[in-house]
Amino acid sequence: MIVVMKVGSPADEIERISQEFTEWGLSPEKIVGKHKVVIGLVGETASLDPLQIQEISPWIENVLRVEQPFKRASLEYRHGEYSEVIIDTPDGPVAVGKNHPVAVVAGPCSVENEAMIVETAKRVKAAGAKFLRGGAYKPRTSPYAFQGHGESALELLAAAREASGLGIITEVMDAADLDKIAEVADVVQVGARNMQNFSLLKKVGAQDKPVLLKRGMSATIDEWLMAAEYVLAAGNPRVILCERGIRTFDGKYTRNTLDLSVLPVLRSLTHLPIMIDPSHGTGKSDYVPAMAAAAIAAGTDSLMIEVHPNPAKALSDGPQSLTPDKFDRVMQDLSIIGKTVNRWPQAEVALA
Amino acid sequence: MIVVMKVGSPADEIERISQEFTEWGLSPEKIVGKHKVVIGLVGETASLDPLQIQEISPWIENVLRVEQPFKRASLEYRHGEYSEVIIDTPDGPVAVGKNHPVAVVAGPCSVENEAMIVETAKRVKAAGAKFLRGGAYKPRTSPYAFQGHGESALELLAAAREASGLGIITEVMDAADLDKIAEVADVVQVGARNMQNFSLLKKVGAQDKPVLLKRGMSATIDEWLMAAEYVLAAGNPRVILCERGIRTFDGKYTRNTLDLSVLPVLRSLTHLPIMIDPSHGTGKSDYVPAMAAAAIAAGTDSLMIEVHPNPAKALSDGPQSLTPDKFDRVMQDLSIIGKTVNRWPQAEVALA
Amino acid sequence: MIVVMKVGSPADEIERISQEFTEWGLSPEKIVGKHKVVIGLVGETASLDPLQIQEISPWIENVLRVEQPFKRASLEYRHGEYSEVIIDTPDGPVAVGKNHPVAVVAGPCSVENEAMIVETAKRVKAAGAKFLRGGAYKPRTSPYAFQGHGESALELLAAAREASGLGIITEVMDAADLDKIAEVADVVQVGARNMQNFSLLKKVGAQDKPVLLKRGMSATIDEWLMAAEYVLAAGNPRVILCERGIRTFDGKYTRNTLDLSVLPVLRSLTHLPIMIDPSHGTGKSDYVPAMAAAAIAAGTDSLMIEVHPNPAKALSDGPQSLTPDKFDRVMQDLSIIGKTVNRWPQAEVALA
Amino acid sequence: MIVVMKVGSPADEIERISQEFTEWGLSPEKIVGKHKVVIGLVGETASLDPLQIQEISPWIENVLRVEQPFKRASLEYRHGEYSEVIIDTPDGPVAVGKNHPVAVVAGPCSVENEAMIVETAKRVKAAGAKFLRGGAYKPRTSPYAFQGHGESALELLAAAREASGLGIITEVMDAADLDKIAEVADVVQVGARNMQNFSLLKKVGAQDKPVLLKRGMSATIDEWLMAAEYVLAAGNPRVILCERGIRTFDGKYTRNTLDLSVLPVLRSLTHLPIMIDPSHGTGKSDYVPAMAAAAIAAGTDSLMIEVHPNPAKALSDGPQSLTPDKFDRVMQDLSIIGKTVNRWPQAEVALA
Repeated sequence: MIVVMKVGSPADEIERISQEFTEWGLSPEKIVGKHKVVIGLVGETASLDPLQIQEISPWIENVLRVEQPFKRASLEYRHGEYSEVIIDTPDGPVAVGKNHPVAVVAGPCSVENEAMIVETAKRVKAAGAKFLRGGAYKPRTSPYAFQGHGESALELLAAAREASGLGIITEVMDAADLDKIAEVADVVQVGARNMQNFSLLKKVGAQDKPVLLKRGMSATIDEWLMAAEYVLAAGNPRVILCERGIRTFDGKYTRNTLDLSVLPVLRSLTHLPIMIDPSHGTGKSDYVPAMAAAAIAAGTDSLMIEVHPNPAKALSDGPQSLTPDKFDRVMQDLSIIGKTVNRWPQAEVALA
Repeated sequence: MIVVMKVGSPADEIERISQEFTEWGLSPEKIVGKHKVVIGLVGETASLDPLQIQEISPWIENVLRVEQPFKRASLEYRHGEYSEVIIDTPDGPVAVGKNHPVAVVAGPCSVENEAMIVETAKRVKAAGAKFLRGGAYKPRTSPYAFQGHGESALELLAAAREASGLGIITEVMDAADLDKIAEVADVVQVGARNMQNFSLLKKVGAQDKPVLLKRGMSATIDEWLMAAEYVLAAGNPRVILCERGIRTFDGKYTRNTLDLSVLPVLRSLTHLPIMIDPSHGTGKSDYVPAMAAAAIAAGTDSLMIEVHPNPAKALSDGPQSLTPDKFDRVMQDLSIIGKTVNRWPQAEVALA
Repeated sequence: MIVVMKVGSPADEIERISQEFTEWGLSPEKIVGKHKVVIGLVGETASLDPLQIQEISPWIENVLRVEQPFKRASLEYRHGEYSEVIIDTPDGPVAVGKNHPVAVVAGPCSVENEAMIVETAKRVKAAGAKFLRGGAYKPRTSPYAFQGHGESALELLAAAREASGLGIITEVMDAADLDKIAEVADVVQVGARNMQNFSLLKKVGAQDKPVLLKRGMSATIDEWLMAAEYVLAAGNPRVILCERGIRTFDGKYTRNTLDLSVLPVLRSLTHLPIMIDPSHGTGKSDYVPAMAAAAIAAGTDSLMIEVHPNPAKALSDGPQSLTPDKFDRVMQDLSIIGKTVNRWPQAEVALA
Repeated sequence: MIVVMKVGSPADEIERISQEFTEWGLSPEKIVGKHKVVIGLVGETASLDPLQIQEISPWIENVLRVEQPFKRASLEYRHGEYSEVIIDTPDGPVAVGKNHPVAVVAGPCSVENEAMIVETAKRVKAAGAKFLRGGAYKPRTSPYAFQGHGESALELLAAAREASGLGIITEVMDAADLDKIAEVADVVQVGARNMQNFSLLKKVGAQDKPVLLKRGMSATIDEWLMAAEYVLAAGNPRVILCERGIRTFDGKYTRNTLDLSVLPVLRSLTHLPIMIDPSHGTGKSDYVPAMAAAAIAAGTDSLMIEVHPNPAKALSDGPQSLTPDKFDRVMQDLSIIGKTVNRWPQAEVALA
């Protein structure tokens, strides 16, 4: 933090301010020029608000933040080394991160019945997915819309997990459900609408399962990383960041604006792995293949794609879901891009 | 909902679609012209997604929503009559609504200690406030920032309530704290970051205290009213909507953009009372007086203004807090506008 | 501008950088602390780009702008004194500024024919307006929409000017039309879509008529003031800033989001007078009265309100236009607020 | 356009409205159901405003636009066939479009002197670019910033054109400069700030050179296509659409948010070729390679990349410019993705 004093600031006011900073537990350093004095602040400045500091004296011209507000999420925290999140699945551990193949998560918006979720799981696995997504608890804008089958859907996810060998990713909306969810889920998802539900963040940070943290629909990069910081600070180091589209001025053709620039930006700021969700990011299945390919080309570590056996009859988010057949073709196309950038799994050798 | 069929749609396809709608529990009405057929849908369409409907046939040209997605929150639901929310306070009931004087809520961002909260309560009461605001649990972007004193702050709010006679408004961030909070609070606040925390909305809807529902920082008017609908549908009819600034492209001089047009817009859509928070809405105490005056002129039912005995030392949101002295002067100025529009409380006659 | 050097920056690199700044015509001041060195830059920094400076050495940690990018538009430029723009009208000079009554501009979106523009002029004058607005050249999203009657409409404005005594405000879209427009107009308007049409700004800055500069629909406060700076730097000191609503994520109920916080914000930054346009700002005539009242309460110097004798038949922007009768009633209501804040013209004494 | 009448609308009111539409030159079709009547409007509805229509009767419940507002720009206009824009260059014609290799445009933000522009031209040509970009007239936020060398820069572009064989793309800011620019340029660029400078659009539409139309920084897809429609309607069929980043709420790490979803969206709406500009789109050269790769994977027809021999000394936009060496490496990486998707030029066989 850099505190710029106005020209002509009295020496004793600078002294008084420096003392105040010391009382706050900071180490102020006076940096003196012929005309200007600047105070550099060293210490735990992450929680300080520049505007707040400005209030302490009328002689302060400006307060400028130099350092990043996040710490454990920063790339510096791991000395420039990217972290990998290793997730246990019935088929063995899957690593998600910059030095691993693109991990594909697929499945329906919500778990509707056993047949559909088990069938979908088998189909997406055959196409190359490593994880099954499916909502048991659904955040819906309307209280009158289908809210997910809740606890009974968790059992269906467990069945699909066993039948397919895929890892399970599902959303927690209420901390009271966390234990039940963590019994079934291999990754616990915090949705966009709860990205700044700090109580929930602390609780998913205090349990063991990896956390998929979706970006809030109008969250800045800094706010998103600070939300991750809540989970990390609570003791859980396994966080994956998922971009799912931001809210902008134009929602006519796409539900959100998928911000793929987070890929190079986050790489320069954080060690955490990154997932892209082109299904929510565009809201329309026709736009998913192009944006998924773009995400791989730009370096994503993971993709989340909605797949539903019968999108026209889906209880939620049908318009953005691919059919299993369409998903097969998309995965084939993606594998070509993925291999080109050396981020696609090697075909496993079938053992006799 | 209006389903527009493409020119030349086969009669049996229109039949098939109509049947599908009937299975969904809707009453489709075929509206036939020489060239075009349109299907009107009557029934519980609030939870339907136009994009979802579009999926059911390639012969559908367009699906258009005619009706509002909210019901209990709508002005029609009360046949055009505005509701008033009556809140019990130690000094007696206070009504908030279009046909009542502007109710002023004032107090610090967070409760810091007993002296400050009791002193602030007395000062804002003397200046004309009816409610004391003060955070026990604080949503903070950084996990390292002051998170509120929690339960112990609730006791301090109770003390301030008793000492001043003011009603208490405080935020609930975690449903687990709701009972404790509701013991002290006269109004339970759901913050902007939790506006779409649907689990929390259902729970505040299932208890008795009035609910202050802040607008999410990028929530549309419809989403905001749907969040209110969650509370109303859960059984709690006492909801006040609070505008606190939205997120836009320019955050250099104001933290948010206070959207005062919600005043005439909400009036045309909903019966619920409206509060404006110019402190969060601008983020800077210098801008509060002008925006508070504007809110009264545009017809607000209530104002929320941050007041802190020593903003420079506030643990949170100092820059947007007025001092009690400044608040006195602002209230005097506001009373002039308030009286002009016949929305200011009559001076009470002091009884000997 | 403050250049923060990384800890451990070599002395000769600091020297090299300082020399480079000197070559750019700036006066660098080295500000030295025990751990950190900061370089303060004095001189013509308004045109410098912090990112650009960052490029000149890998040892630069951060470049921070302290001063405002605008100069002639700044409040400091006039030592804290607000400017007034005095406009000649047939009825005599009208002053627009902080120390004058609210000047009301009214009239149709576009000039349609002589009868309508003359009638409207007389009606709005009788209701208290000082200026007539009316478009001869109209910026329309569609090339197939009515583009204004152009030159012939200018003659009709001249007729309305003579018949009513009102000053005329009309938009210039093309520098080639500027002379013709300036013959008729008392104020030349630059529309929102041309706010960063820098060629046009230079040209309206090089002529004599006062300039009404509408805010671009996604222009930051700084960009808006820099646009004004173009006009001022070209030699024309008479600029009025007009807020007409910004583009945000929610356009369902209002066409734009009217940002009334510009009133206190601009007052703290610039000496230029401010106008508010609630008609474009909301896009709906029902919302105009509340927002006009709010603007006066928040301190506007001027209002622009669309009035059309028959909004249902208007060739453009009918939905946001008031009828003359409605405008009469709105003006009466506004006069009450205006008098309360001492910003309304005294009733003129009718002379026998 | 679909006009939905309120339940119980009197038959003669429906008659009156239909007659009014007929007077407007439209063919209204009454579509009658048991409860509801809907009026379908056929004809030139592109210029109609739904809000405007709503005004004509209180019995109208809603007016809904079914068709697209653009016509010549629509994919239907060419019966689903994508157009190619063929541009003459000294080295022969280059086709830009969906069925052609990705055309790369490279060069500095502004033309600074002959040596730099000629050297840059030769370097980017050697790396595979087909066009040289370079600004003679520069739109700058500040009137005090470098505004481009103007006419003399055009001569330098002509020299670079001759020396390299590349086609030239440069921006027109003022219609008065159009003839001079068109003498040198092979493609005339309309910048983001002038996307709705309708006078300029008409003039570039009335001349022969192909037009590169940048998306305004807060332009919706529809507004952008309507801007293209201005050019097309004025007689010039050769328009290329260029996405260069939109303005959102987060500008800390990227200057704009590059909206790559325009690639699949525009493909479904328009026949016009698409270019992506990752340099302006991110504002930072480090982010350009990832976003350029993503654009190719998502199907762009063309790329615009800023290259400057010495970004640290660039007179404008240095931070987003690559050095020629870096550009060489980026082009090699892009060629791999480009070949994977069959959109990269075949290496030309060198003839002895």
